[in-house]
Amino acid sequence: MKLKNYNYIALLMNEILLQNVYACGKRCDILVRGNLIAKIADKIEAPAAEVIDCSRMAAIPGFINMHTHAAMTMTRSAKEDMTLMPWLQYIWKIEAQIDEEILYWGNKLACLEMIKTGTTCYNDMYWGVGIAARACDEMGIRGVHSYCMLDNGDMVKAEKERKALVRAFEESKSFSSLNMFEVAVHAPYTVCADNMRWAAMFAEENDLPIHIHLSETEQEVKDAQKNWGCSPVEYCESLGLLSDRVIAAHSLWLSPHDIELMGAYGVTAVHNINSNLKIASGYKFPMDELMAAGANVTLGTDGCGSSNNLDMLEALKTAALLQKAWRNNPEAAPLSTLLKIGSENAAKALKLNAGKIEEGRLADIVLIDMNNVWFTPNYNFEANLVYSANSSCVDTVICDGRIVMRGRKVEGEQEILDNAAACGERLMSRIK
Amino acid sequence: MKLKNYNYIALLMNEILLQNVYACGKRCDILVRGNLIAKIADKIEAPAAEVIDCSRMAAIPGFINMHTHAAMTMTRSAKEDMTLMPWLQYIWKIEAQIDEEILYWGNKLACLEMIKTGTTCYNDMYWGVGIAARACDEMGIRGVHSYCMLDNGDMVKAEKERKALVRAFEESKSFSSLNMFEVAVHAPYTVCADNMRWAAMFAEENDLPIHIHLSETEQEVKDAQKNWGCSPVEYCESLGLLSDRVIAAHSLWLSPHDIELMGAYGVTAVHNINSNLKIASGYKFPMDELMAAGANVTLGTDGCGSSNNLDMLEALKTAALLQKAWRNNPEAAPLSTLLKIGSENAAKALKLNAGKIEEGRLADIVLIDMNNVWFTPNYNFEANLVYSANSSCVDTVICDGRIVMRGRKVEGEQEILDNAAACGERLMSRIK
Repeated sequence: MKLKNYNYIALLMNEILLQNVYACGKRCDILVRGNLIAKIADKIEAPAAEVIDCSRMAAIPGFINMHTHAAMTMTRSAKEDMTLMPWLQYIWKIEAQIDEEILYWGNKLACLEMIKTGTTCYNDMYWGVGIAARACDEMGIRGVHSYCMLDNGDMVKAEKERKALVRAFEESKSFSSLNMFEVAVHAPYTVCADNMRWAAMFAEENDLPIHIHLSETEQEVKDAQKNWGCSPVEYCESLGLLSDRVIAAHSLWLSPHDIELMGAYGVTAVHNINSNLKIASGYKFPMDELMAAGANVTLGTDGCGSSNNLDMLEALKTAALLQKAWRNNPEAAPLSTLLKIGSENAAKALKLNAGKIEEGRLADIVLIDMNNVWFTPNYNFEANLVYSANSSCVDTVICDGRIVMRGRKVEGEQEILDNAAACGERLMSRIK
Repeated sequence: MKLKNYNYIALLMNEILLQNVYACGKRCDILVRGNLIAKIADKIEAPAAEVIDCSRMAAIPGFINMHTHAAMTMTRSAKEDMTLMPWLQYIWKIEAQIDEEILYWGNKLACLEMIKTGTTCYNDMYWGVGIAARACDEMGIRGVHSYCMLDNGDMVKAEKERKALVRAFEESKSFSSLNMFEVAVHAPYTVCADNMRWAAMFAEENDLPIHIHLSETEQEVKDAQKNWGCSPVEYCESLGLLSDRVIAAHSLWLSPHDIELMGAYGVTAVHNINSNLKIASGYKFPMDELMAAGANVTLGTDGCGSSNNLDMLEALKTAALLQKAWRNNPEAAPLSTLLKIGSENAAKALKLNAGKIEEGRLADIVLIDMNNVWFTPNYNFEANLVYSANSSCVDTVICDGRIVMRGRKVEGEQEILDNAAACGERLMSRIK
């Protein structure tokens, strides 16, 4: 995949010097030039740079949320404590009423929340690619967008869906470098075999990732066995849809053979622990087994309809706690693995030159404020970040070399909150 | 139990008027006079009161953390991702080096963290009752303190422990009304039968609660069967230690007969989900079964050695998610139950006239800022509080009628952080 990671215009921007910051296990200076991390050293002289005193801060790579439905922030708290089918039916009723304005403010609200919680890139599965890309441009973070194909086996709809995806792809060619495009297939049980095959082919031809819901619930696996005589993962393989382009959200109910296949094809699995717990899909995500097989393990929040927020730091903690608990092993999901899952592995999946604090990488950097109770005492920064802190420790967010949040303030924040709240009222009034 | 809930001197204090606040499902005014909630009405005139504009805020009762070891904030992040026994040995090595100054700043740090996360009362299990009470007085929140008996079956030590507890009880008689006293028994497997019987008697004679670790791990239950031929709960009953005075931390590995006993005696169970998950003790807390049997269910964070923070809002979310997940039922642990667990049930256990926003109750009130992404849209305040927000939404904390945090600022905060950090460095230098 060739994605547009470099924004040469950004090179004309001012430099930013992060002075005396804690990063990669030591104190250092970090120079951001244009949209890149230009230099990391004990002491850097940069007379023209904007200097940020980081003596109480740590720098980490921005989180990459590998599975969400951003605009579904508009369904946050709409229906709670409900079993899956009545809940889904209610959510679909709401979604049918989402117009372009609601979609726009929903996307803006999602971007705002992601910035506030230290996420600089997200992998979306929704519709309205132009609106989503506009929200990313205005907010200054990266989004991977698509048109999510969903035909329920209706051949007329299937053709329409392919055309809609192609149109979205054409539209995406004019997007800024903050925005990427991917092929999105809702799930094996909602998309016909022809469109699954077509998606694989289209992604290959155009060098794009493929985003899909896969093996989320036990029922899905049972239905697959009944309908196709194999697991959802095996079904995807039979259609030629398994490859290292595939970003498989949930990947929760996997057989040893499924795991072997995902490893062999280099599939990226996205763990969505909070959503899985809340709607009671399960929690025994085979993290170690997938990694051992060679699959790429990443993390997502899912949409706010099911998981209620887009907080990657919270998701990291819950993921770690659950791995330890169900494996009955406190050594499971160690900190070194967790932090890769939140950024580095995701960047690899998206072929994005980010995910690490390293010279030459994109300057997608989050500054963590350590001057608070969560980091006192601070014997182990990573432990305090994951197990003690919450996302309010995110002080400053830099994406593509630009400061998008400074001292927890985001430009235009109140306007977004007010408009999203008004859209929410309008949305609810339509379904009563 | 007669606990000193009323501070008549506080009646001379100024009044506070919470204007246009969202509480108990509607907008209203709340008047705090002295240390009590004096009035709740649509509109209150109180010319002499300090007015807080709450048009973007909600009022909830302060959280009551029913099981913690406050001073163990000093062990936060000391050892991570480790199996139980080597971890415990390391923690004990650290604890052996805690002097009075470290204890003091550890308690102050814990109080600061609790205030920042909306907790106005905590049930502690530690030593140094005078220092702990001083920290509560200085910080303005309530603490239930004790001397934690632990003799490992050594009869000489057992007598010393009884004497130490009595001394602490005598000392507590001069404490302010913010501080309460209880009998603390480490666990059935670390305290001899004589001291268990004595604890029950002493608590009865002096009208005190009894705080104990009970049925935390599967191993503990197996050992009990081997040593006593019964479960830890049955063993407590045989010693006369079960009653509605008992606050049983963890209560995780319970048989149907244990649950029946805890219900029949009206025992209070404290769920410590984050600690249970992190050290892999288990997660199938029988919340519904305990409540159905008549036991009182509450929530705690445990100490920062095992759970890393003292955040009750985070604990509420994790508790809810786990109940839904392992029961395979999204309707489990509904919001109405959760919010009682965080405050009301705990107040009942401590016979503290708090835990609800209601006229005549103690003014232990937390103001939640709803002007942020977590509460946008805000179709359901309780859902957003538990599932979407983190504790940074806690804006203002009132305890015993006094404002202890305002706009997230606590007096003397930086001094506490600096001193606790310095103490942490000193502590670590001693065990190297």
